[in-house]
Order: sequence, then structure tokens, then C-alpha cells
Amino acid sequence: MNALHFTGNQSFSIEPDVATPPQPGEVQLRVAYCGVCGTDVHIYHGAMPQRLSLPQVIGHEVSAEISALGAGVTGWQIGDRVTVRPLQPGAEDPSDNGQPHIGKNLKFIGIDTPGGMQSHWNVPAHTLHRLPDTLPLTIGAMIEPLAVACHDVRLGRVQAGEQVVVIGGGPIGMLIALVARHKGAQVLVSEVNAARLELAATLGLAVVNPTTADLVAEVERFTAGAMADVVFEVSGVAAGVAAMTQLARARGRLVMVAIHAEPRAVDLFRVFWRELQLIGVRVYEPQDFEEAIALAESGTLPLEDLITQIAPLAEAPAVFEAIDKNPAGMKYLLEC
Amino acid sequence: MNALHFTGNQSFSIEPDVATPPQPGEVQLRVAYCGVCGTDVHIYHGAMPQRLSLPQVIGHEVSAEISALGAGVTGWQIGDRVTVRPLQPGAEDPSDNGQPHIGKNLKFIGIDTPGGMQSHWNVPAHTLHRLPDTLPLTIGAMIEPLAVACHDVRLGRVQAGEQVVVIGGGPIGMLIALVARHKGAQVLVSEVNAARLELAATLGLAVVNPTTADLVAEVERFTAGAMADVVFEVSGVAAGVAAMTQLARARGRLVMVAIHAEPRAVDLFRVFWRELQLIGVRVYEPQDFEEAIALAESGTLPLEDLITQIAPLAEAPAVFEAIDKNPAGMKYLLEC
Repeated sequence: MNALHFTGNQSFSIEPDVATPPQPGEVQLRVAYCGVCGTDVHIYHGAMPQRLSLPQVIGHEVSAEISALGAGVTGWQIGDRVTVRPLQPGAEDPSDNGQPHIGKNLKFIGIDTPGGMQSHWNVPAHTLHRLPDTLPLTIGAMIEPLAVACHDVRLGRVQAGEQVVVIGGGPIGMLIALVARHKGAQVLVSEVNAARLELAATLGLAVVNPTTADLVAEVERFTAGAMADVVFEVSGVAAGVAAMTQLARARGRLVMVAIHAEPRAVDLFRVFWRELQLIGVRVYEPQDFEEAIALAESGTLPLEDLITQIAPLAEAPAVFEAIDKNPAGMKYLLEC
Repeated sequence: MNALHFTGNQSFSIEPDVATPPQPGEVQLRVAYCGVCGTDVHIYHGAMPQRLSLPQVIGHEVSAEISALGAGVTGWQIGDRVTVRPLQPGAEDPSDNGQPHIGKNLKFIGIDTPGGMQSHWNVPAHTLHRLPDTLPLTIGAMIEPLAVACHDVRLGRVQAGEQVVVIGGGPIGMLIALVARHKGAQVLVSEVNAARLELAATLGLAVVNPTTADLVAEVERFTAGAMADVVFEVSGVAAGVAAMTQLARARGRLVMVAIHAEPRAVDLFRVFWRELQLIGVRVYEPQDFEEAIALAESGTLPLEDLITQIAPLAEAPAVFEAIDKNPAGMKYLLEC
């Protein structure tokens, strides 16, 4: 029964878990697994310090069982198996345009408030999604990143038979590739890391290494000259942005998944010339969680193959170090 | 009966017009008016030299009467009043995605082939759109740029009641503003030129000068904090690109109308953060011409107010010089 306290500067302390009674509208969770998100690694390296209150528990990719119900919580029972959609909408801003999941005053649970890398975790009941009894709780901890992929593929309007290029084969890029393939698309993954390329190939995805091959020529070949209907930019690097506009066909969609902290040079002439669409996508909506759970339950996606390591929570500091040392790694789960 | 031959290097020669018989599938037009497009001015300054065959007649914003029919032309008669959609699709490329108006092998009539700044002009019959008898031929020469605006507003999916910002109040920006207002949108025009601002205000459009006011604050005020549903970038400058992402609300649409010859720094974080959509738009499709003609015929748009000057074709060299000297000018028509 531990809690992983991030203390800043790439450091954690393992503290005894303290189970507190849930507030009205909340549930107390007994966390089973919590995945390590790229965002957690960024926080580990010092990103977003103003959003944290150190020492703080982070983490938001959780599978759990409900261990206590706060006042006024209906529709849930102790023992229910759940995952968490870690979004806490704030006051609605006129500029939110009726989109609470990206609202101006949204709080992200696990960054702006304590996260799930602890044995017990209290969260608002409105954030819960039920996990099927048949779904392993390891896979349950992958629903959140899978929901990201479902959201991105949905907003990218990927259709069966379309040609899709995913730039960046990390965990989210790989999940996007798998969801897009499940929709019936032909998917090519562009990735620079040899081990990730090998994993993608093992999963039956077409792959290309843009540092050793001509990416535009490879996409031409893959699509028989038609070029991509949809390009997902998941690399977060300038080279990915430079490539995306070259890979799409007329009226192709470019889906901006990655976080680019700095403005990037974009070939706006090509956006104009071929009437491309660039579509920003962020987090998820409830329907994306429901789709992710249904997809995971169906067993059609090789989600287990994306799990690099499962480690006890007490070994989390070593896991974060391992992630830094192994850029080929995919999904690391902490057993809480 | 003249033809304006562009001879390169900001120079023209006025040559006698030579009426040639139309080829099969073509019509011969007796040109009434030809507007001067921004593209014509760019060509005057040396743009796209590889696409021209000097000396060449340029121009593509035309009203005309049919003066002869080539073999095989049906549905048209000598004397019919028409305008020209100056697109000649080439062989279909797999990457065209069924969009001939932006096809890889498209030729633009008046750039890649001779244009309308001459008394007689032969064009393929498939490029013609019929002008109503009641429409003045001066206004008929404005259908082509109006069709650009109709295309841009259509692809921007502007709806009644939406808040629209147009960055750049030149001829196309002004027409976009007028068409968007006609759709029922609230429109704010951002423009740096005092005379253009005054013209826009005269037309009843809300205006802001981003060099003397805080554009973001003005859009906040104009939209009561909701920010823009749609932003049209028509300025073609880096400052317009930097502004556009700041002005849109969540899931707002940014319509890329302007030609940015160089890649521009784009705030992709904001595209991601607020799930913005950037939509490239170029030229037009047949339905945009039909909409433009119907709009012009309805008389609801103050198109006459956008005509800066009407001059005989023989005075075209002076007109091009005047355009260079008067950045406030809107639409110049040459009487052919």
C-alpha cells in the first residue's frame, strides 16, 4: 500500500498510502495498474511545474476497483471495475464552444490534481467508465491512451479503404495505427527507432524509416501514387511537420496529435495548393472511452504486445530511469 | 480592337487584336471587361515566369459575349453573355482525389495559356457560365473573384449567426466578408490600410486596424468573449498567420486563402490545445460560379462599390502602375 510522490527534479519518494474517505460526488478507488504516459515522463523532466503542487502523486492511466462511495454517488457499487477519464471541467468559458473536454478552465486529473500512482485514489464519479469483467486489469490501464487514439482517428474521419500514414511510432502513434487499421484503413508507420519499427512490423503494420528511406517516395509506392488520405503527426518534431504536408493527397487530412511547444514552419502554400485540412485533436470525449473499452474487449487489437514491462509501484523510480534509457520501450505499467 | 501583350519586366505592348477561329470544343469570345487580379499584378512583377510564354496576354476575370462557336459546341449561341471559369483540367493524377479544380495537371487559363485582356479570346466551352441578361457586364467581370469568395466561405462552412474574422481587406478579403455576412455571419475585417478600412466601414462591415489596436482584445470584444467561429487568413503575411490561431474559439476553423510562398511559423500547440481546424482553399468549383452569379444577380452585395476604376484596355500599362501606387485600390476593370 504505497503512494509515489513526485518531489521534482527527476525524483520520487515512496510514501505509505493513505486512504481518505471520498468527498460527496467522489469514489475511492483501489488502483490496480497505472500506466506511465509520455506526459508523466515530461513532468519527471520538469515540464509544467506551475501546474503541480509538489510533492504530488501523478499518473492518469488507471484500472481500478471501487473501494468506497462518496455521498450522492449513484449507479456505482463497491467492487465495480473501472477506468478513469481524467478530465475535470471547470467553469464554462464562452470560447469553449460547447466542448468541455478542451475547455479553458479544464483541470487534468493527475497533473492539476493528484494522480493515480498510489494504492487508493479519490476521483469524481463522473470520470468513471465501467470495465467489462472479462477485460484484464492490465489492459484496463491502457484504455486511456487507447481512447486518445480513438478520438484522433474519429476526428481524422478515417474511413475503410483509406490510406493512412502515422508519423511517429511511440505508444500513441502505434495505437492510432492499430485503431485506423481496425477501421479498415491501410496504415504505414514512419518511425526512426529500429526496435519500434520491428515491433510495428511484428504487429503487421507497414513501416518506413524516414532517416534511411525517401519518405515521400515510400508513401507514393505504398499508395500507388494516390498519397495519403490521412496523415497523423505524432512525432512532435519539426521534421514530422515538414513531412506531413508532402504526404497527403488533394483534400487530405493532417491530424495534429503531437504537442509542439514551439511554433513550427508549416508549408501553408501546399495547404492552399492541395486544399489540405489540418485538424487539431486533444484528449478525448466520453464516447472515445466507450469505443476504446469495446475495442479492447473485442480482443481484436494486440494491446498486450504493447506492454514493455509491469513493475511494482515501489520500483517506479527505476522504471522512469529505464524509460529514459530505452527509447524503444512502449507501455510501462505500475502495479499499485 | 486591342490585345495587351505582357512582355516581362513590368512592361506591356498594345498590339492589334487578332480574332482567330475557335478550335473544336472552343468558343470565341468578344471580351467586354477583364478585371485585374492580384495574380496578374504578381505576374507583372515577375512571378511564375516559367508558366508564361512571353509575350503573352494575361487576365482571367472576364465578362464577354460569344462571337463564334467551334465545331461540336452545343448549348451555346452567338451573342450569349458569359463569364469564364478559367480552369483547364489535365490528365487525372491518382493524388487528385477526384478534385479536378486542384488537380496536379490543371492548367490555369490566363497564366499557363493566353488570357482575357484582349478583344477576342478563345476558350474551351466547358469553362463558360451564363450571365443573366439583367447583370451589367462590369459586374460580370467580378464573378470570378466572387466565386473565389463563395468557394472559401463554403469550404469554411460559415453558418448564420457565426462570428467571422477576415484578416486582410483586399478585394478577395472584402468579397469573403460580404459573402459571409450574406450567409448571416457577424463579420469583422482586420486590415492595415486606412482607405480600405474606410471602404469596409462604408459597406457596413466592422473593422479593426491590428497595427493600432490589440486584435485579440478587439475580437474578444466583438464576440463577447466567444472568439471567432471562422478566421479567414487573406493577408499573406506572417503576422496574419501568427494572429489566426489566437482569434479562434475551440474547434474554430481557420481558412487558408492567402498564398504564402514560404513556410510560416504556425502555433501548432494552439491548434492541438483548442482542436482548431486549418482548411486550405483554392480557386473554385462550378457550383461556386453558379452561386456567385446568383448572388450578383440578386443585387444584395454592393459589388459596384468595390470597383475602383474602369479603363480602356489601351490604358492598361498606366492601370498596373496605378495599382502599384495605390495599395488602397480594390477592383480595376479593363474595357476590352
